[in-house]
Amino acid sequence: MTYETKLACPIQRTMAMIADKWKVVVIYTLGQRTMRFGELQRALEGITPKVLTRQLRDLEGDGLVSRRVHAEIPPRVEYSLTTLGRELLPILDELHAWATRNSVALISRREEQKTERTPAA
Amino acid sequence: MTYETKLACPIQRTMAMIADKWKVVVIYTLGQRTMRFGELQRALEGITPKVLTRQLRDLEGDGLVSRRVHAEIPPRVEYSLTTLGRELLPILDELHAWATRNSVALISRREEQKTERTPAA
Repeated sequence: MTYETKLACPIQRTMAMIADKWKVVVIYTLGQRTMRFGELQRALEGITPKVLTRQLRDLEGDGLVSRRVHAEIPPRVEYSLTTLGRELLPILDELHAWATRNSVALISRREEQKTERTPAA
Repeated sequence: MTYETKLACPIQRTMAMIADKWKVVVIYTLGQRTMRFGELQRALEGITPKVLTRQLRDLEGDGLVSRRVHAEIPPRVEYSLTTLGRELLPILDELHAWATRNSVALISRREEQKTERTPAA
């Protein structure tokens, strides 16, 4: 199986869509409500407009986010989750619950590994 | 909230752990059974030893995979999922189901976007 074949696997396609840490947060934030670009940027403190634009384009391209332009002056552009994107929310909630439930174990394990680390075979 | 603060968010930490497309497949494959490095590499056709070594070290560092060295000549090294890693399997299954259920919609949407794409605001 080549790398290209693997990309055809649904789970890998999905990870490619949401893998970026910012993307998960964009999906989460738009899960609250429809937002304009500026609102979204303020909600995601630390994200640059360039990075946010790229994330939104990717998410839009994958059908997880929809972009609606209202014919006003100046034009109002709003972003929201599509039905597809909305269906990811409960799964992300479970990942969040897993991480929260295991955060102590995750941190202590990482500390152990730092001291125990031996070369991989 | 700074980027560092965001990294402290459990869901972002989790995504950082499993975001790589190979990692998901490594977790899936080790979900079947304990494997030696060579078996795992053969199961994941297309992965280079260097990439697989890095993925396994990361997953081990995050406590999702355990590495066991058996004192034989030559030493036998086996990788398996930890309890923590095993708990991710049902969540990855749901992501897989979401992607499979929506694969037609995902592909057609992507095609639409390719033709409709307008500059982001």
